[in-house]
Amino acid sequence: MLTISIMRLKHSAVERKSESSKTNTNEDAIMPLVRIDIGKTASRERVRDVGNAVYNAMITVANVPIYDKFQIVTRHEPDEIIYPEEGYLGIDYTPDLIIIQVTWVGGRSTEVKKKFYQHIADEIHARQGVRKQDIWISLVDSGREDWSFGNGEMQYAPK
Amino acid sequence: MLTISIMRLKHSAVERKSESSKTNTNEDAIMPLVRIDIGKTASRERVRDVGNAVYNAMITVANVPIYDKFQIVTRHEPDEIIYPEEGYLGIDYTPDLIIIQVTWVGGRSTEVKKKFYQHIADEIHARQGVRKQDIWISLVDSGREDWSFGNGEMQYAPK
Amino acid sequence: MLTISIMRLKHSAVERKSESSKTNTNEDAIMPLVRIDIGKTASRERVRDVGNAVYNAMITVANVPIYDKFQIVTRHEPDEIIYPEEGYLGIDYTPDLIIIQVTWVGGRSTEVKKKFYQHIADEIHARQGVRKQDIWISLVDSGREDWSFGNGEMQYAPK
Repeated sequence: MLTISIMRLKHSAVERKSESSKTNTNEDAIMPLVRIDIGKTASRERVRDVGNAVYNAMITVANVPIYDKFQIVTRHEPDEIIYPEEGYLGIDYTPDLIIIQVTWVGGRSTEVKKKFYQHIADEIHARQGVRKQDIWISLVDSGREDWSFGNGEMQYAPK
Repeated sequence: MLTISIMRLKHSAVERKSESSKTNTNEDAIMPLVRIDIGKTASRERVRDVGNAVYNAMITVANVPIYDKFQIVTRHEPDEIIYPEEGYLGIDYTPDLIIIQVTWVGGRSTEVKKKFYQHIADEIHARQGVRKQDIWISLVDSGREDWSFGNGEMQYAPK
Repeated sequence: MLTISIMRLKHSAVERKSESSKTNTNEDAIMPLVRIDIGKTASRERVRDVGNAVYNAMITVANVPIYDKFQIVTRHEPDEIIYPEEGYLGIDYTPDLIIIQVTWVGGRSTEVKKKFYQHIADEIHARQGVRKQDIWISLVDSGREDWSFGNGEMQYAPK
């Protein structure tokens, strides 16, 4: 059932992609590595849905090639995910806080990044009922030549 | 008692802040995410004090807004934190080694970074008796638009 | 036996270094911090050999000073290292996938990075029989002033 669900998500991503854009060439490769830090009490379904939400947001708004889905999840004890109990910028947090950090090739516009954040929060909230306040995202840029997807090769040379 | 102690630290941070600077506006936002990697044998108090030391250093020397405290702790087996047994640059290490990596918005001066390192090492040493040699820090820059503090929003637009 | 093995690797690294280059001064300091994410079923020997392979590649091709070996290993449950079941770019992956992320000071050439990827994949494959497809590498740049190797000091000032 896990596999079926993932496949369905991926097929719908493929359809969305082919409807909305034909420009997904090497030129657009942004090679994300995603780190997801989440509480130990999160269910396996929640962990899976968070990963899929980040992946779907990439496909839908950030022009990431399909199947470019490499993610590392680390589950934590309650004292290992630290947030301000007073809140910050008018946002308050709970122990459900999920921290997502994406390293990718730079070049996404501010507008794309805004949509990316929104898509992730919307999908995690819709599927798992996580408060949107508890979805926290950080992006880090690197270069095209900074990635090996296996085989000891640099798959994308610098432009 | 944990809560009381944290509150006290935060209040003293507030006081220091209001004494030393009124310039802590959006212009200064640097949005740190802190990763702390530490041995499994570290006490809960040590873990808490390390997080507070990094936070206090940010408030005191790096002009980080108060309550901007987002940290991820990962506890490790002895063979998971690897350091040179021969030492490096004349510094020797023990299994107490704590590795702190901060991702934040670029722009701190070299002078601020120097004070930042010193403050962290001083406070961890003072509170927990950790050798200053065993406090290791790495900084990574990102942009203002690279952060969502919740709600699926980009809280700080690029300048 | 673990210690003996590490010492041997280090000595051979020293020899290679002194044969191939005398230019390893502060000018070349690149200060890597390595994160290795690997499955819980990996043996202690595999974890050790992966760390040594990354270190040896740095010494051999990327001009990293000897003994500059700081690495963080995190072991994961099967659902915590996520890869595309369909493969990507013609490469397929298995649960043995090892993700290596290196933060270091920028400046390595594309040619050096290519050799770096190859050396890591070759050595891990040779020692542990891991498929080269299952060795995944990501690099992140930072500045010379972004590191404290202990003592609360900035060991390398910016140029």
